Amino acid sequence: MRLLWLFLAFCLAPGWALADPLPSWNGTEAKASIIEFVEAVTDPASGDYVKASDRIAVFDNDGTLWSEQPLYFQLLFAVDRLREMAEADPSILTSDSLKAAAAGDLKTALAGGEEALLDIIMASHSGLSVDAYMASVGEWLDSARHPTTGLAYSSMIYQPMLELLSYLRDEGFATYIVSGGGIHFMRAFAEDVYGIPPEQVIGSAGNSSYQVINGVPQIMKDPGIAFIDDKAGKPVAIDSKIGKRPIFVGGNSDGDFEMLEWSTAGEGPRFGLIVHHTDAEREWAYDRESHVGMLDKVLDQADAKGWIIVDMKKDWKTVFPAK
Amino acid sequence: MRLLWLFLAFCLAPGWALADPLPSWNGTEAKASIIEFVEAVTDPASGDYVKASDRIAVFDNDGTLWSEQPLYFQLLFAVDRLREMAEADPSILTSDSLKAAAAGDLKTALAGGEEALLDIIMASHSGLSVDAYMASVGEWLDSARHPTTGLAYSSMIYQPMLELLSYLRDEGFATYIVSGGGIHFMRAFAEDVYGIPPEQVIGSAGNSSYQVINGVPQIMKDPGIAFIDDKAGKPVAIDSKIGKRPIFVGGNSDGDFEMLEWSTAGEGPRFGLIVHHTDAEREWAYDRESHVGMLDKVLDQADAKGWIIVDMKKDWKTVFPAK
Repeated sequence: MRLLWLFLAFCLAPGWALADPLPSWNGTEAKASIIEFVEAVTDPASGDYVKASDRIAVFDNDGTLWSEQPLYFQLLFAVDRLREMAEADPSILTSDSLKAAAAGDLKTALAGGEEALLDIIMASHSGLSVDAYMASVGEWLDSARHPTTGLAYSSMIYQPMLELLSYLRDEGFATYIVSGGGIHFMRAFAEDVYGIPPEQVIGSAGNSSYQVINGVPQIMKDPGIAFIDDKAGKPVAIDSKIGKRPIFVGGNSDGDFEMLEWSTAGEGPRFGLIVHHTDAEREWAYDRESHVGMLDKVLDQADAKGWIIVDMKKDWKTVFPAK
Repeated sequence: MRLLWLFLAFCLAPGWALADPLPSWNGTEAKASIIEFVEAVTDPASGDYVKASDRIAVFDNDGTLWSEQPLYFQLLFAVDRLREMAEADPSILTSDSLKAAAAGDLKTALAGGEEALLDIIMASHSGLSVDAYMASVGEWLDSARHPTTGLAYSSMIYQPMLELLSYLRDEGFATYIVSGGGIHFMRAFAEDVYGIPPEQVIGSAGNSSYQVINGVPQIMKDPGIAFIDDKAGKPVAIDSKIGKRPIFVGGNSDGDFEMLEWSTAGEGPRFGLIVHHTDAEREWAYDRESHVGMLDKVLDQADAKGWIIVDMKKDWKTVFPAK
């Protein structure tokens, strides 16, 4: 009996990690509503119970699980890779955008808008096998550093969101990434960094083809865009790859509007979470006017739709994981 | 001690189901090599051990998990649905193929080859929501009967393959369908019939879009083909949706050649299984000359590639499940 009391006292003591699945979240409304939702859908006695195979949680990546300023990290990778490729063969720089990008002048490079951006992505992301491409992403992640924080990109992930992913998985959820980022780019780190395996990573994709080269069967990354996993593309991709309507959705920008709308319109309990970048000191502060991660329409409709806005500054004890 | 002996005697007695994971397979080489492979890759002490998260098994559907004669069952569904739709609105029959199909004259309907076939699929598979489409497949499966066997289509599945799927899952494999069949068509029954959930069904797909209709967000099936999951499309789809090279592949036709080739060319232990339709009495006998499920190139190369050919007549005790 004394042992039992000792055990209980130990478990209930402050700082006992297992008692709090979200230790990096402040005790505000956002945290309380996440826990309330998860407890309801996992309690067989609750009217809101959802069987484990239907506990699908989807998360945007850029700005939701890791940072996206001053530009999407994949674009910074593309520029670095382009520069490296151009050193070996300058003739690949067939446009002014590509030349500017390889010279490190991103302002000029991106002046051409979406077309210029796709040009840079295409030139740096095709003409090699998926395996070779993923190896090159891995090398870049190991060596490149963010221009203002000086951190490795894969350490600019959000500790509170890592805890949320783990918490959901511990409670029987399958956690997916559904992001505008490239599928092979994200798979190069998603399992190590987020614990999300390749089959649960959904993203944009270039064309690809099956080829046997010198007797070696492989998947090649080809020029041309196969699918853009953004806006209305997100629910379409979820239907195509998961075939179930998620009950938990996390996003941070208007690119997540349709995914939030479709998922939370389903019957039964649903949770929509929006990461609002409000912390200029520890990360960045931006929303309606931002070129990267614009959050405008989603912010307007969050209240009416019952989506929970996470105020990074107020709701998170820490942003990036301790080193 | 006596109890232990009793227990052992019971377990080892012939007919003790748990002792044999593949009771509907005759004790031939095919069965032995499946079991030998599975035991090797799941034994941590074996040099061929594969960790559970990499135990990916993929199976074609038509002719591998269920029958495909006299025509792919999905095409028979398309014709039935077209006839029903034309009764309500004959103006949808905009071509001779469609008119012939709705009149039940399949020979004329399909004389136009692949174009006619896609025409029939398109007319019957678009212009409605995914939910409505899947409900219509479900109703058809409940009521329609196969023209020669008189059986429900969903009972023309292969009992030995059901056992193989269960065996692999029991041993930590994830079992996927990778088939030329339509993704939403297969999802309408794959979980009930094969125990394969929607997120593990990969197939061909028409275009689809996200739409909010009368305030209801939904995924609509649109005209046009988005992806054909056949031949070289199969490894591309596996890379896109799973992101891992399977270690176990089951197929039955030349449409599975590239998937077999790519998967079994990977490092470490790999298993390629080919269902050879040799049983005209219990099912059908066809291979090199068949319009449906042609098995020619795969048969030629099976030996050299180390793929195991399952002779339906010789290797299977039963074909369809007992009622």
